[in-house]
Amino acid sequence: MSLDPEIAARLKRNPDGLIPAIAQQYDTGEVLMLAWMNDEALHRTLTTGRATYWSRSRGEYWVKGATSGNVQEVKAVALDCDGDTILVKVDQAGGACHTGDRTCFDAAPLKIALG
Amino acid sequence: MSLDPEIAARLKRNPDGLIPAIAQQYDTGEVLMLAWMNDEALHRTLTTGRATYWSRSRGEYWVKGATSGNVQEVKAVALDCDGDTILVKVDQAGGACHTGDRTCFDAAPLKIALG
Repeated sequence: MSLDPEIAARLKRNPDGLIPAIAQQYDTGEVLMLAWMNDEALHRTLTTGRATYWSRSRGEYWVKGATSGNVQEVKAVALDCDGDTILVKVDQAGGACHTGDRTCFDAAPLKIALG
Repeated sequence: MSLDPEIAARLKRNPDGLIPAIAQQYDTGEVLMLAWMNDEALHRTLTTGRATYWSRSRGEYWVKGATSGNVQEVKAVALDCDGDTILVKVDQAGGACHTGDRTCFDAAPLKIALG
């Protein structure tokens, strides 16, 4: 089994065959992280209920939390208007970030300095 | 003036010099859209208070809402742990999507079919 051809036909992939996937906590709205999916990762995400990405650094499928236990239970998935971004609403166990932070955006706020 | 060198040193850009930027409604948490920034777009976002992207299709800077009026007032900006994604919390006037939808993810939910 692979990704539904109707869905596959709507995807706009980058030259590496990947699409950015935004993981968001489904109830609080927190943006947790951004990772990448190919067709098979999206298929696994839609059919296993566990958010699954393509690890660009390791070159392998990556079930989020498979090692850490900080899994993402999939609640909803949507494509954007162009088919080039995926939004995955999840229930995140523990911290989403490998640093232990709840989200990958907690540690580095940038200063807004209106000119 | 250009982007603060301390910030620029933390960015991990793709081969085109771009970084994905997630726009989120600051109060409701809605994920509105994903677009792309280069160093100068991030600089303009941080210093003008208007979310500014690099349009890959038009090859030019793109002040969101400059044409439509649906501007994004910047409330907060953060880098992720790897420096390869930007989260921009904004107050979105009107719809974020060129289709008129509030967000770019409203029109295409994907069916989750647990196997």
